[in-house]
Amino acid sequence: MTEYAFKKTGRKVSNWGRWGDDDEKGTLNYVTPDTVKQALSAIRTGERYELSIPVGDSGPQTGWMKRINPVHTMSVTPYDLTGPDGVAISDDFITMPLQSGTQLDGLTHVGYDGAFYNGVPLDAMTPGSGATRNAVDATLPGFAGRAVLLDVASLDGGEWLAAGRAVTVADLERAEEAAGVRLGTADALLVRTGWLRKGLTQGWQGWLEEEPGLAPECAEWIHERELAMVACDNWGVEVLPASDGMVPLHAVLIRDMGMMLGEMWNLEDLAEACRADGTWDFFLTATALRITGGAGSPVSPVAIR
Amino acid sequence: MTEYAFKKTGRKVSNWGRWGDDDEKGTLNYVTPDTVKQALSAIRTGERYELSIPVGDSGPQTGWMKRINPVHTMSVTPYDLTGPDGVAISDDFITMPLQSGTQLDGLTHVGYDGAFYNGVPLDAMTPGSGATRNAVDATLPGFAGRAVLLDVASLDGGEWLAAGRAVTVADLERAEEAAGVRLGTADALLVRTGWLRKGLTQGWQGWLEEEPGLAPECAEWIHERELAMVACDNWGVEVLPASDGMVPLHAVLIRDMGMMLGEMWNLEDLAEACRADGTWDFFLTATALRITGGAGSPVSPVAIR
Amino acid sequence: MTEYAFKKTGRKVSNWGRWGDDDEKGTLNYVTPDTVKQALSAIRTGERYELSIPVGDSGPQTGWMKRINPVHTMSVTPYDLTGPDGVAISDDFITMPLQSGTQLDGLTHVGYDGAFYNGVPLDAMTPGSGATRNAVDATLPGFAGRAVLLDVASLDGGEWLAAGRAVTVADLERAEEAAGVRLGTADALLVRTGWLRKGLTQGWQGWLEEEPGLAPECAEWIHERELAMVACDNWGVEVLPASDGMVPLHAVLIRDMGMMLGEMWNLEDLAEACRADGTWDFFLTATALRITGGAGSPVSPVAIR
Amino acid sequence: MTEYAFKKTGRKVSNWGRWGDDDEKGTLNYVTPDTVKQALSAIRTGERYELSIPVGDSGPQTGWMKRINPVHTMSVTPYDLTGPDGVAISDDFITMPLQSGTQLDGLTHVGYDGAFYNGVPLDAMTPGSGATRNAVDATLPGFAGRAVLLDVASLDGGEWLAAGRAVTVADLERAEEAAGVRLGTADALLVRTGWLRKGLTQGWQGWLEEEPGLAPECAEWIHERELAMVACDNWGVEVLPASDGMVPLHAVLIRDMGMMLGEMWNLEDLAEACRADGTWDFFLTATALRITGGAGSPVSPVAIR
Repeated sequence: MTEYAFKKTGRKVSNWGRWGDDDEKGTLNYVTPDTVKQALSAIRTGERYELSIPVGDSGPQTGWMKRINPVHTMSVTPYDLTGPDGVAISDDFITMPLQSGTQLDGLTHVGYDGAFYNGVPLDAMTPGSGATRNAVDATLPGFAGRAVLLDVASLDGGEWLAAGRAVTVADLERAEEAAGVRLGTADALLVRTGWLRKGLTQGWQGWLEEEPGLAPECAEWIHERELAMVACDNWGVEVLPASDGMVPLHAVLIRDMGMMLGEMWNLEDLAEACRADGTWDFFLTATALRITGGAGSPVSPVAIR
Repeated sequence: MTEYAFKKTGRKVSNWGRWGDDDEKGTLNYVTPDTVKQALSAIRTGERYELSIPVGDSGPQTGWMKRINPVHTMSVTPYDLTGPDGVAISDDFITMPLQSGTQLDGLTHVGYDGAFYNGVPLDAMTPGSGATRNAVDATLPGFAGRAVLLDVASLDGGEWLAAGRAVTVADLERAEEAAGVRLGTADALLVRTGWLRKGLTQGWQGWLEEEPGLAPECAEWIHERELAMVACDNWGVEVLPASDGMVPLHAVLIRDMGMMLGEMWNLEDLAEACRADGTWDFFLTATALRITGGAGSPVSPVAIR
Repeated sequence: MTEYAFKKTGRKVSNWGRWGDDDEKGTLNYVTPDTVKQALSAIRTGERYELSIPVGDSGPQTGWMKRINPVHTMSVTPYDLTGPDGVAISDDFITMPLQSGTQLDGLTHVGYDGAFYNGVPLDAMTPGSGATRNAVDATLPGFAGRAVLLDVASLDGGEWLAAGRAVTVADLERAEEAAGVRLGTADALLVRTGWLRKGLTQGWQGWLEEEPGLAPECAEWIHERELAMVACDNWGVEVLPASDGMVPLHAVLIRDMGMMLGEMWNLEDLAEACRADGTWDFFLTATALRITGGAGSPVSPVAIR
Repeated sequence: MTEYAFKKTGRKVSNWGRWGDDDEKGTLNYVTPDTVKQALSAIRTGERYELSIPVGDSGPQTGWMKRINPVHTMSVTPYDLTGPDGVAISDDFITMPLQSGTQLDGLTHVGYDGAFYNGVPLDAMTPGSGATRNAVDATLPGFAGRAVLLDVASLDGGEWLAAGRAVTVADLERAEEAAGVRLGTADALLVRTGWLRKGLTQGWQGWLEEEPGLAPECAEWIHERELAMVACDNWGVEVLPASDGMVPLHAVLIRDMGMMLGEMWNLEDLAEACRADGTWDFFLTATALRITGGAGSPVSPVAIR
């Protein structure tokens, strides 16, 4: 039997041991106080863009793999609790899959051949306690630093890339050139495929069944550039369905390189701003919730231009 | 019948109409691209501190007002899903009160006398859809800017202030002086009472029943300084139980001034770092999740020193 | 403006005050120890049929009105907890709308013109505590007694009635005649429209958008017969969409008569058994969970033939 | 190393293979149409007693093993949805551990030495899909038949047995004699320890830490009598903590014999009625919800005297 190609790539780009045998942060290790400080130069105006889709029942989920849209209910409202001082209180609940909307994949979200990132055995993910190693709370304070938006959808001249369209290294480099930037150590890469725009404007029907996204070959490029994080506006970063296993790019980026992936990030307004002034890099913060044992987390990424 | 004193204060410090009749951001309006840019000067080293307590069953909640600790369960683990390519996936769920841990109170969390901030009627908080106005998602991108930590607990010489100890304007100004800083327009104020340290080190028994915190008189000072946000390491910002109604400072800050409050923020490591080098201001980001109709949100605040 | 016709019917069949001003059981009051005992004669063989559809992600819900399918997750599995004695434990969680599957509507599920059954004001349903009167836990021990299945779908000669087909009093009486039974005081009426069979065999697509079901005129007949409960194999008992308001039969049966309604009951196997031996009455038990403040409840109805 | 004694007992009383290699019903197989019919003679008056504690935040849970009390929230209330016809709707949600209150333990709730009842391997309990064999939905239609209440607490002359008090075979036989009944094939045994009364009247503080309950030796007696089910008013049926492993009686009854256990059943009113007329047997129905993959289920047991 021929080996899946992604495993060969995985061995090439592996970061296991690179930051210590107990490391649980992976490529976030590229981020240092120095890189954070240097990245401040990417802030020109101080304008901010938050990059999430709504957390609620308007989301794309259908119940597949138990992924429902977040359910928000009120537990206290002014109809319930009003004091003699006239004070009224509102409290609320959320029930949600951590993978249902704008999110960060943690380092136990995907593993293969018995191991997660850094050789952590798969049974470190326990059904009852969640991730006992490589949990999402170990990635805090998360990402801060320079990020670059590569708007491949616009470069292609359409509103969104077609389902199944693989974004290649050539696409990324063409976009870099068009943007006049070069991604490097500790940067975050944001790729706009337009797929989220399709969902937001045409509805979610069929949206989760396929998508344009990064080609598996991007793994080596991401590794060479020493990027800290990759996030996209599609639901799974990579082009899907894949032809080399289930999620070959996830497998390599998360398990071999130790990289958190950002999914369903709303890059629409940010892209418009970048287009308007021709500046495609900025400061970005993206921090998971401190979920004990979490395999992922909803996130409110903020770009400061 | 004598009026509750906080309502008189509320009228004095009211921001209703100040940023337009439809404004839903309140004191976050102090934050502008310019204040964000200026605040970058508070970043000296690039070191970061995330300020949340764990999201999980180790939290302080007891079920009072339906506030339970977050429940995290796995919906997919490597025991369930492993492909022919050896790839294993983990997915998870969270069920949590939005007020259960490190959080931001939104502008419908507290109202009184028929209205929330900016005159929004209380029935804008609907049981079924949550907040139809003044929802937490309207506050995005949230806070970014300069923040100052006032470590009142350490100034008092102990590990934490006693329950019932009211932090006064004099305390705040004494702390400012000790820190060599002065809070001003668009800043966030972080007050350390040590109460979280008590919970973390002594256990949560009784922890939610009372607390040290800001005195009601602080409202006017906060207003004059034009602060954008206040956050504390206790569970309710203000000294509780209160003597003038249920939650007089909440009532004034949230409903009259339109200010989000940060609660249960973990200031321990940050305070130690500030103590170590005598620098008490820094850059802070704090952004709610984009919860449709939310009255509040869990948050992962990040201080960059 | 012409009054909605169902309100006129409601006044005719009202049971308000009939069993006391504080009554919260409505037509379950027809059920007495004597009727229970007498109903035992409807047990001929002792064979039992449980009448629910699966509680899980295979259900018909789409998220409309926040009605999702039940989400079942494991909190402890043998992978987590195995003692030195080799003992392994499994524990689990359910998150579900109480209206998502085989259910009983409680007496606060529907009201109109300011009141629920027996004149309870609508604000007795509080967002924070649920129903403070007429809650589903007040209906316990629920129904036990004689029930009759009227298989209108089979009488019509098809697998299921078409969407929009109204089951009339003439249909019910024709079915009674065919079954050789006559419904009377304290009985439960089970009507098979086949609509559930359609969902189970053809899929749920569009299933919740319309349905065959009882015509509004059935209310008076049900009242005259002094039935204790009505349950159907469709999702909303009555033919929907309705032409006289939103849910006219719900309104009259629940609010005016004080009757719990059973929805999405699986009558397939039971109907087959009845068809086989020509006996259409049996003993039935149907008891809600004791949900404090509940507006409804999942239920496991059991027919004993 | 000496073997745990319960395993020796387990081999003696094993029902594996007794009802077929694929059997998932265990001792419910004792229940047949004939036993159901015969049990009707235990109905003298038709009076009913429902045996559950409230499903809501008043329950005994503390969060141990993630077992919280059920959380009930409203998703639609009359404040949200009122049509032009004046019709108002209420809908609600429950989030609950299936082990949090009055419940039935399913046949995957406890296993040992690699297997559940009937040799089903432990990995049939999957974290993602729950029980793929021996699930609670396979036990439907559940129990119906004759049950006997043995009120050991009253026999001992107090309100409740002390924590740690083991109910022995001698106790059970003494209670049988006092009641003038003898338990036999297909019967359900209900044992009143009074422990629930303690919780209901004295509060839940410490209630879940220990309990009176059945001694391990009862397993053989239960087996010889060919009982279909055992339920108690304590939280775990057996005396706890145990001296022979974690939960030796659970292990034998559930895993070796294939018996569902009823826990936290409220026997107070029923016991009072039995005491009043000296009749201790009755008809009982107890049916789980049809939870796909469930390890247990809340239940509303109904006794008909």
